[in-house]
Amino acid sequence: MEVVQVLHMNGGVGETSYAKNSLLQQKVISMTKPITEDAITKLYCSKYPEEIAIADLGCSSGPNTFFLVSELLKVVDSVRQKIGQKSPEYQVFLNDLPGNDFNTIFRSLSIFQNKLRKQLGPGNGPCFFTGVPGSFYGRLFRKNSLHFVHSSYSLHWLSQVPQGLESNKRNIYMASTSPPDVLKAYYVQFQKDFSLFLKCRSEEMVDGGRMVLTLLGRRSDDPSSKECCYFWELLAMALSDMLVEGLIEEEKLNSFNIPMYTPSPAEVKYEVVKEGSFNIARLEVTEVNWNAYQDETDLSDAFKDGGYNVAKCMRAVAEPLLASHFGEGILDEVFRRYREIISDRVSKEKNEFVNVTVSLIKA
Amino acid sequence: MEVVQVLHMNGGVGETSYAKNSLLQQKVISMTKPITEDAITKLYCSKYPEEIAIADLGCSSGPNTFFLVSELLKVVDSVRQKIGQKSPEYQVFLNDLPGNDFNTIFRSLSIFQNKLRKQLGPGNGPCFFTGVPGSFYGRLFRKNSLHFVHSSYSLHWLSQVPQGLESNKRNIYMASTSPPDVLKAYYVQFQKDFSLFLKCRSEEMVDGGRMVLTLLGRRSDDPSSKECCYFWELLAMALSDMLVEGLIEEEKLNSFNIPMYTPSPAEVKYEVVKEGSFNIARLEVTEVNWNAYQDETDLSDAFKDGGYNVAKCMRAVAEPLLASHFGEGILDEVFRRYREIISDRVSKEKNEFVNVTVSLIKA
Repeated sequence: MEVVQVLHMNGGVGETSYAKNSLLQQKVISMTKPITEDAITKLYCSKYPEEIAIADLGCSSGPNTFFLVSELLKVVDSVRQKIGQKSPEYQVFLNDLPGNDFNTIFRSLSIFQNKLRKQLGPGNGPCFFTGVPGSFYGRLFRKNSLHFVHSSYSLHWLSQVPQGLESNKRNIYMASTSPPDVLKAYYVQFQKDFSLFLKCRSEEMVDGGRMVLTLLGRRSDDPSSKECCYFWELLAMALSDMLVEGLIEEEKLNSFNIPMYTPSPAEVKYEVVKEGSFNIARLEVTEVNWNAYQDETDLSDAFKDGGYNVAKCMRAVAEPLLASHFGEGILDEVFRRYREIISDRVSKEKNEFVNVTVSLIKA
Repeated sequence: MEVVQVLHMNGGVGETSYAKNSLLQQKVISMTKPITEDAITKLYCSKYPEEIAIADLGCSSGPNTFFLVSELLKVVDSVRQKIGQKSPEYQVFLNDLPGNDFNTIFRSLSIFQNKLRKQLGPGNGPCFFTGVPGSFYGRLFRKNSLHFVHSSYSLHWLSQVPQGLESNKRNIYMASTSPPDVLKAYYVQFQKDFSLFLKCRSEEMVDGGRMVLTLLGRRSDDPSSKECCYFWELLAMALSDMLVEGLIEEEKLNSFNIPMYTPSPAEVKYEVVKEGSFNIARLEVTEVNWNAYQDETDLSDAFKDGGYNVAKCMRAVAEPLLASHFGEGILDEVFRRYREIISDRVSKEKNEFVNVTVSLIKA
């Protein structure tokens, strides 16, 4: 499977961009804000550059697309006002796969820019926006042209389904019942992809440039631990039930695997050190409840239904993969079952997505 | 009227992008190729830069979007092979208004890149594409970030309909019967817009950078001369006929004016010298027949019909303006009449679009 197919999930239109633009994702950006804030402040204060080129990789299209940029610019503007510096000019590169809906981003740009201008007040430097279509598992920018790189909830997607998963049968991701060679195949693909990502970015970033990456991950050393695999195991349960009832074919289920890897902090660190272009400033783990809405008031009952929310979020992510493998016919049924299973679990146990965030400095 | 509305004509989708993507426009790019080739060659040979940042302003979306870029890269690649230089890396900025269909450009990018890779062969440096939404009558890029700027058939569009055209009554553009204050209002708007354009680009371009601009224009000193105003006068005739028949309102026709200016080479030169950031390398005038298809064989009779072609091309340009002013209801009728009038003239007289091309060096 090509990366283009895989990552479309995160950068698609309508329903498929739900995951990136959900309250969940906004919570993740907010939770990792201290790390991002720290990185952009140190970048700015190290040289007070006249221009800052920022790239957001896997930007998707929707409310969250501009959320990060506006946070970054507010931080820099606040710092530069305190110390009486002239504002830098900003160049913002919004990247996602070519299938992303850049038209929608571009058409909402002037509203965003007007809002930002009011928030930042006079004296703030111009901010130039560009769209960059392409996979981040390859070069996207000129050499030494980026000062700050950000990517949230995109890099756990592999460039392809790993080779050699034939023995993963009823599982659709790494699971406690996956044979060791399956776990290894997943890890090898992650190493290859993540290391290529680091190499490409190291060519594109200036020395001293900063990069903050947040991936879905895990705390445990065990790649098949429940904290990172459970939401896929529950989907596999729904699919297995449908297999038993003859609604999907065995061969189809056996050959279906999710092209994702949820690394531990140690695995992230290992790749960064091995690749050698970056120093680690911070490496942190955060959690966000499966039902990101549970603390919110003023939401309809449907939104407060944990099963509904997690299933909707996971559907956004998994639908394109399921549709291309099983056909569109099964989608409603599989997600109806998945939602039921999740609702049951959410009412009985507390489940969390684990996020690994790493803040890097280009050496 | 906002620039956003005006320039949408050249950067729209479907029918509206016809003008920029017609054979006419491709002929214009081919005709001005010696000038563009000369400029990019001299730029490259002056410093053999390791990277070249190219901006195409008013790129539209369609077959012609990539035509220019591929021509430029072929020239550089041929020169660098001859002298045994390593290929530079390229950064290409494709600019148009936010309403342009960037999704279509981005989704056809990989096909274009594969084709280009084959044409240029091994050893050619990577080429990074970005989309830049926004009006070129304002800053679009970082300071000192561009080496080569190109714009074809976009800059004759003004940022707005000039103020003070009340006395232009039955005319819809400058015409032989336009009062002097109307001609002056058009010229003043052109001066303001073109000068702002030059100022913005001068901030964005590196010293020694090159810029090639092609505008619809005229040879004559008279701004209402037939060579630049005739195609609008014929449209005004069609509208006047409809007024006489009660199909449109007098007040509507009196207040309709096209936001365009077709300058003479002397007027272009005057603004460049006055603004002061650029030296003129070349300033040339070319003509292209109203019916750009007339020399082609293998075309259907419809395509060989000069009236059909010019009317279609002009419709692409004028339709959004007419629709927003008069309503969509009149469009088919006005263009049926316009086509008839043009067919009649094309059969009796030879008419040409006049293009003014200026090649500039950032001082």
